[in-house]
Amino acid sequence: MLDLTVNRDSKPPLYRQIAEQIKTQISNGRLPANSRLPTVRGLARSLGVTRLTVQNAYAELQADGWVEATVGRGTFVSTAVQQMSLQPTVGQYLTPDSAINDMLAINQVIGVRSMAMAHADPALFPIEAFWGQMDRLKPDANQLLSYGPIQGDTGLRVEVSQMLQDDGIPATPDDILITSGAIQSIYLATAAVAQPGDTVLVEQPTFLGVLNILKAQGLRPLHIPMQPDGPDLDQMEQLVSRHRPRCYYTVANFHNPTGYSISAAKRQTILQLAQRHNMLLIEDDIYGKLGFAGPPPPSFKQQDGGDRVLYLSSFSKMLMPGLRVGYLLMPPAWRDQLLTLRRATDLCGTGLLQRALAHFLQDGGLKKHLRRVVPIYRERRDALLASLGRWMPTAVRWTEPQGGFSCWVTLPRRLPPGLLYRQALENGFAFTPGEAYMMEDTGHEYLRLCFGNLSAEGIEAGVKLLSTLIQQQLDSGQTRGDWLPYV
Amino acid sequence: MLDLTVNRDSKPPLYRQIAEQIKTQISNGRLPANSRLPTVRGLARSLGVTRLTVQNAYAELQADGWVEATVGRGTFVSTAVQQMSLQPTVGQYLTPDSAINDMLAINQVIGVRSMAMAHADPALFPIEAFWGQMDRLKPDANQLLSYGPIQGDTGLRVEVSQMLQDDGIPATPDDILITSGAIQSIYLATAAVAQPGDTVLVEQPTFLGVLNILKAQGLRPLHIPMQPDGPDLDQMEQLVSRHRPRCYYTVANFHNPTGYSISAAKRQTILQLAQRHNMLLIEDDIYGKLGFAGPPPPSFKQQDGGDRVLYLSSFSKMLMPGLRVGYLLMPPAWRDQLLTLRRATDLCGTGLLQRALAHFLQDGGLKKHLRRVVPIYRERRDALLASLGRWMPTAVRWTEPQGGFSCWVTLPRRLPPGLLYRQALENGFAFTPGEAYMMEDTGHEYLRLCFGNLSAEGIEAGVKLLSTLIQQQLDSGQTRGDWLPYV
Repeated sequence: MLDLTVNRDSKPPLYRQIAEQIKTQISNGRLPANSRLPTVRGLARSLGVTRLTVQNAYAELQADGWVEATVGRGTFVSTAVQQMSLQPTVGQYLTPDSAINDMLAINQVIGVRSMAMAHADPALFPIEAFWGQMDRLKPDANQLLSYGPIQGDTGLRVEVSQMLQDDGIPATPDDILITSGAIQSIYLATAAVAQPGDTVLVEQPTFLGVLNILKAQGLRPLHIPMQPDGPDLDQMEQLVSRHRPRCYYTVANFHNPTGYSISAAKRQTILQLAQRHNMLLIEDDIYGKLGFAGPPPPSFKQQDGGDRVLYLSSFSKMLMPGLRVGYLLMPPAWRDQLLTLRRATDLCGTGLLQRALAHFLQDGGLKKHLRRVVPIYRERRDALLASLGRWMPTAVRWTEPQGGFSCWVTLPRRLPPGLLYRQALENGFAFTPGEAYMMEDTGHEYLRLCFGNLSAEGIEAGVKLLSTLIQQQLDSGQTRGDWLPYV
Repeated sequence: MLDLTVNRDSKPPLYRQIAEQIKTQISNGRLPANSRLPTVRGLARSLGVTRLTVQNAYAELQADGWVEATVGRGTFVSTAVQQMSLQPTVGQYLTPDSAINDMLAINQVIGVRSMAMAHADPALFPIEAFWGQMDRLKPDANQLLSYGPIQGDTGLRVEVSQMLQDDGIPATPDDILITSGAIQSIYLATAAVAQPGDTVLVEQPTFLGVLNILKAQGLRPLHIPMQPDGPDLDQMEQLVSRHRPRCYYTVANFHNPTGYSISAAKRQTILQLAQRHNMLLIEDDIYGKLGFAGPPPPSFKQQDGGDRVLYLSSFSKMLMPGLRVGYLLMPPAWRDQLLTLRRATDLCGTGLLQRALAHFLQDGGLKKHLRRVVPIYRERRDALLASLGRWMPTAVRWTEPQGGFSCWVTLPRRLPPGLLYRQALENGFAFTPGEAYMMEDTGHEYLRLCFGNLSAEGIEAGVKLLSTLIQQQLDSGQTRGDWLPYV
């Protein structure tokens, strides 16, 4: 792994040469955090230097915080140095692709206050209760760590179908496909119903993951503006008549990134439009159980008599994303095709976590968890709205989300998006620029702030900083320039 | 979930009507094993019958073994009844798709002795050691149950790159993509390098999962006969010159389903051929660490100076498939495309299991496990070969696998494939018919027997039964007829 050379004729002492090369390899990612360095003896032998030389190199690295030594286990690249090497890697581009990468990378960095990711707060995860369910499964571990059913753990499908029925959606366990999260559900659903070259209707802005999925499958997104009560129906009617999109992907409840929900009236009209033009719906209800003022209007699926709606959700936002468990309700007409695709993409999920989740649901763990956390997220939403009202320049506008984790902020005019993003990061604060959620080269006057993951104090501090940066840019009179790469 | 009706004018008593409808729903899969039935009170109310009626229905179901009642938790569909309802669902078709389904379904059935699946023995899984690693992670559970890096847990990538280096394959942690098993690695690799309509070279027979993957992606398989030392090179040269396949998918070590390995000489020739015709290689080394007579010849990847070989493997066969952890070594030229596809298909894997696996590897757990289990699998291979020699009709032939789990049996002539499969199942024994591994409508004189999963005694009993059935068919003079659906 380590690719080191030493030059005996060179000026810096040997131990320093070794230390510097290791630092470089840590910085450029060749040696990630938690990598184990070779033993002193091993490295000394392979480089043909004395052990003392290597010991000195390691000691220097340790003193500067690049590595940590654990007695009896060895020397490891420190996790703290990720911070030293992060900044050059984030913010380079603002495609949906890179925005996801940035979010995940920023998430690992200590010291950055991130409102970039629509993410439940890990500190609120019900670890004890879930771990207890896992422990109870140890006697079955041999079976649960074997291959599981393609459709997912039977017990979990029973519980999920029960949840759906409680929400007014008829479903048997056999209709449920357990997936590795909403992304996989969307991927499978679009791959099943659409062919490369087909058009797919999406909201503008929309969940950035779906833009990646459509691109990967050679599908062409068409977009309709999202309004506070749902998509613009006039434009939708025109687009659908003209382009005959194969399906419409929608986050009808607590929409990401705007926080809007589609009104009951618009849902009915859209469903009729879909029927008239033989358009399918892919209904992503990942935030549906995170409503601050009660449940959202009846879902599209609830009103779908037949095979028009492919409904999906996930435990990522309402529980824990690391479970990698989502679900897709398979209409009979698409069942075989969906199972065939699942079999071809990754065969099956992890039985152990699925079964533990089934027991957790059966014991009422999810309901209990939601009763606890939804009020906390509501408070954070309130803190965000209060902070925005208090600190933001008057011309800035924002949405008032009734659930979920996303708030959509509109700037008074186009500001250099990279500059704002970069300045915020340099001050230890992250958000996601609006263009990540839009078709190419639009969205420069928007940004998304997520409030699930920070305390009320953290939210206020972040908003205050961001407000200052926006005010400075407004004052400077700068308008939108070209995107400046971060490096 | 339960969709029941009662008819007061009908002959059978009400409790019997209820019980029969529940049995039907269990048999047809609407009510899978472990489903919870409604409470007596709830069902009585919803059907408008007395509680005694429901109690009688449940008591009858319980007496016949269809359901199990657990005090304080409710009434559940019994797992044992899967057996009652299995037979109509397996063996209906013999496509690669359905063969995988059958294998997984059969795997769940108690009482069937299955040599159908190339599967490590769950009884040998190192549960204690792995569980110990999970327990140590509980303090980090909040982080490990959040979203993880798209490329996979850093610690795991460090360990995997170390493993690869020990095998003579240069790799840094940053070159590794952790996937949800070999199927996902193959799916991503083919999707990255080939376009719909492209041809892909595969061995004949080949791993049936790859046939599903190619079909799902609109790729066209070309096949070359697999010989004891690898593919037929003359045919390969002709096919490659003529069709210019984009890539060649190969299981070079302990090939599934034949058990063959490609010789060192043929590997070199193939690599030269690939270079000459600009063909990529997808090298699936999932069985490479399961050699009974030492390690296999140097891998294609070891001899690949650059970007020609996409090497992949998985912990499914060498450790536990339920981890859903495989890995793909990304050549720099394909790195971005592979990460983009992973992001679009399922974002990331389960950090908790990945990190536990990293610690397990770091502590030498895998090496220790392999030292223990490979000799056991070797003994089972020996038991299989001895049993085949002792019981099979003289005209039957088979391979002598030097690793992995698969043995490929050739019958003296085409027998009605469905009949043999069905008769074996009826006698509680499962294998996989050869046609699952071949292009359409070929392979009727082959079958695969897997020896990883049964004791020596179980293997002998299975082979003895199968030998008797084959002898009966040979005696009856039947030749290949049309495929008879099982139902």
